[in-house]
Amino acid sequence: MWSKFKFRIRMLKPAQLIVLYYFIAISLSFILLRLPGVHQNEEYIPVIDSLFTAVSAVSVTGLTVISISEVYTTFGIVMIMLILQLGGIGIMSLGTFVWLLVGKKIGLRERQLIMIDHNQYNLSGVVKLIIDIIKILLLIEAVGALLLAVYFTQFYETFSEALLHGVFASVSATTNGGFDITGQSMLPYADDYFVQSITILLIILGAIGFPVLIELKQFLSNKDGAFRFSLFTKLTTITFGILLAVGTLMIFLMEFNNRFEGVSWHKALFYSLFQSTSTRSGGLVTLDVSSFTEPTQLVLSLLMFIGASPSSVGGGIRTTTLAIAVLFLIHFSKGNNQIQVFGREIHLIDVFRSYVVIILAALMSMASIITIMMLDSHDLMAVVFEVTSAFGTSGMSMGITPELSTPSKFIIMMLMFIGRVGLISFLFMIGGNNKKAKYHYPKERVIIG
Amino acid sequence: MWSKFKFRIRMLKPAQLIVLYYFIAISLSFILLRLPGVHQNEEYIPVIDSLFTAVSAVSVTGLTVISISEVYTTFGIVMIMLILQLGGIGIMSLGTFVWLLVGKKIGLRERQLIMIDHNQYNLSGVVKLIIDIIKILLLIEAVGALLLAVYFTQFYETFSEALLHGVFASVSATTNGGFDITGQSMLPYADDYFVQSITILLIILGAIGFPVLIELKQFLSNKDGAFRFSLFTKLTTITFGILLAVGTLMIFLMEFNNRFEGVSWHKALFYSLFQSTSTRSGGLVTLDVSSFTEPTQLVLSLLMFIGASPSSVGGGIRTTTLAIAVLFLIHFSKGNNQIQVFGREIHLIDVFRSYVVIILAALMSMASIITIMMLDSHDLMAVVFEVTSAFGTSGMSMGITPELSTPSKFIIMMLMFIGRVGLISFLFMIGGNNKKAKYHYPKERVIIG
Ligand SMILES: [K+]
Ligand SMILES: [K+]
Repeated sequence: MWSKFKFRIRMLKPAQLIVLYYFIAISLSFILLRLPGVHQNEEYIPVIDSLFTAVSAVSVTGLTVISISEVYTTFGIVMIMLILQLGGIGIMSLGTFVWLLVGKKIGLRERQLIMIDHNQYNLSGVVKLIIDIIKILLLIEAVGALLLAVYFTQFYETFSEALLHGVFASVSATTNGGFDITGQSMLPYADDYFVQSITILLIILGAIGFPVLIELKQFLSNKDGAFRFSLFTKLTTITFGILLAVGTLMIFLMEFNNRFEGVSWHKALFYSLFQSTSTRSGGLVTLDVSSFTEPTQLVLSLLMFIGASPSSVGGGIRTTTLAIAVLFLIHFSKGNNQIQVFGREIHLIDVFRSYVVIILAALMSMASIITIMMLDSHDLMAVVFEVTSAFGTSGMSMGITPELSTPSKFIIMMLMFIGRVGLISFLFMIGGNNKKAKYHYPKERVIIG
Repeated sequence: MWSKFKFRIRMLKPAQLIVLYYFIAISLSFILLRLPGVHQNEEYIPVIDSLFTAVSAVSVTGLTVISISEVYTTFGIVMIMLILQLGGIGIMSLGTFVWLLVGKKIGLRERQLIMIDHNQYNLSGVVKLIIDIIKILLLIEAVGALLLAVYFTQFYETFSEALLHGVFASVSATTNGGFDITGQSMLPYADDYFVQSITILLIILGAIGFPVLIELKQFLSNKDGAFRFSLFTKLTTITFGILLAVGTLMIFLMEFNNRFEGVSWHKALFYSLFQSTSTRSGGLVTLDVSSFTEPTQLVLSLLMFIGASPSSVGGGIRTTTLAIAVLFLIHFSKGNNQIQVFGREIHLIDVFRSYVVIILAALMSMASIITIMMLDSHDLMAVVFEVTSAFGTSGMSMGITPELSTPSKFIIMMLMFIGRVGLISFLFMIGGNNKKAKYHYPKERVIIG
């Protein structure tokens, strides 16, 4: 039985596996969202809207065409939480799983990184890994839910209501789901720095990338000091941090005399920090992003397009893709085709991959923007924002998504789906090895896309 | 004297040489445009506007902050024509010249391509080449001017007036200058398919790339049939043709039920063809592009961003950069890192260059768009259009350029300058050789950026 399953899995191309998983997950989620008792007052919800919600939840994006709090019952809300887990845990496990399946090309370090033995086809190792992922995610969610639920008791009459809101807020933040049951995202907590801080922390833990969490765990449990963080972890974490800081600073400065006029500096700072975190893929907001000026909205779009770390719950072109593009630009302008960073050399194949990801993502986003503009007469800024939000699986919105025509809804669904699985799986499917190149430094691979 | 000059030139980095040339050309042009008798009625023109016109003319872009026909005298118009020549011939000569200076890395084919002997430091060869370029351009312009001037006699009272209009139209088209002295670009000839056809032809001859013209000349004068077009010529010409056709088709289809409603099919087709040609870098228009729908304006922006062939009078990322990006995408998705096309293999360094050019161009354009949006409160679509028009040195306009603030005008000037010289010179300055890679196919270089 094991060996047969193992054989079947090995016969599937990694990309097919991921697409298959998400296809099944979306179908299942769609069925869950059409169950009796899911909708309030037996309200009629069009099939396309349930499908949209299913795709949005499985891809942990958070763009919605209907208000969750107005449409769904508590049962329905629990279903959405389940789907968010399916999406969040799914991509983390699958991303790593696929990494193992194509393990022939992966070096010793990476296999150490994901803590399984040298036989990368060992299914029990994979199962152990996936259980590890689920454990870590559930632990983070549980701690977040507990903190928020206890804190929320001051706002809600019953503990069960506070618990529901606490659990949902924690799950939505950790999986970077971006959904809300307040009916207005995090706007009610715009002055509550405690709730915001917890949420920011949960979003970051989800978006920073699973390998980073694993290495952090290894580092903390390693007493003899011999542990070395991988190039991937260094690169993605530093890029993540820079993006977070630059985003915060830019929002703060660009809205200083606009949206933040008359707002205290600390509130403006929290507004900036929270929205900057959300572009990494969180998707929750503490204010209406339509109230920002257009240059700020463009910056947010750019940040969402970049997205989160690979092997995380986030989307976009991913931090490492950006990092390699920028590093390549710097090195190439100095007459050097080889990127050396942190005493390591970036593999040529990863430079190629970053190129392909960026070109593909840009073409896809532009084609989507132009097509949606042709189908629906919306403001260019709003369309750019919604498209980058979908591709980056951020889920922040300028509010036009519910008004989109059905073909445009399908384009947004496709973007959420590809933003979630497409470029990763695409990259694992493509990209031959580069046997001919010779290198001076020890080589080390990083994940891209 | 020769040897001293030769030594000095060799000491300059190619990029410095190009920047130096354009700095001198702009300074000179600025002085020409401040000469007494240049302006009508001694009208006061702000210094910044003269500088803008100088930069726009030297970079043969054609964006203007003042109406040429309303501000300049015949003497001033002749000055502008001179400056257009300075810009158009300058970049063609310099682009090729620099190619020779870095000739150590250039193979036999390329040197044959530019028809000089094997000693690439031979200055008399360079001078001969530049004279060749000037001859070819002047010949094309003269033929165009003659045809147009004779035809224009039916519209103007005196022959000298018809001649002025004919010569200016021919120079503006061939150098892809995009300037007009009609006061309304080519709108008066919206129904005149003869003038449009001549103009389209002149624009294409200027934008197709000088090496292509040289090879075509070689091909036509070669009787024994042994001539083979270079990879560069094949790649750039085919890309140019595809862009022209796709642009025409998209404008036609996207405006079919919009701007072209009630317009005859042949007029709609000419509108589409003419505007598509103009995005390659011509810059002249037969209609107000503001009357197009936003999706079409986005397509035009994208086409302008791509621009014309390298070593031509056009700007943008250039046809070959796009071609290599797309070819790399296709080959890489098939698991092949090496691009094989027309029985040749694209050199790895050119793939790297195309990557750097695209990333740099995209970053620069986005930063410009965001900054101009912050400085001036203009419509996003119009800013995107104006920025891509400047970078692609197309010069088509949605009309906001004259209203821009001084800092924004400087950004547009910088874009025109970089679009003209920046990425070419940048690429010749940077980019080490890639000695380590081994290839199976005979290698052949193409120009990028
Ligand atoms: K999200
Ligand atoms: K032009």
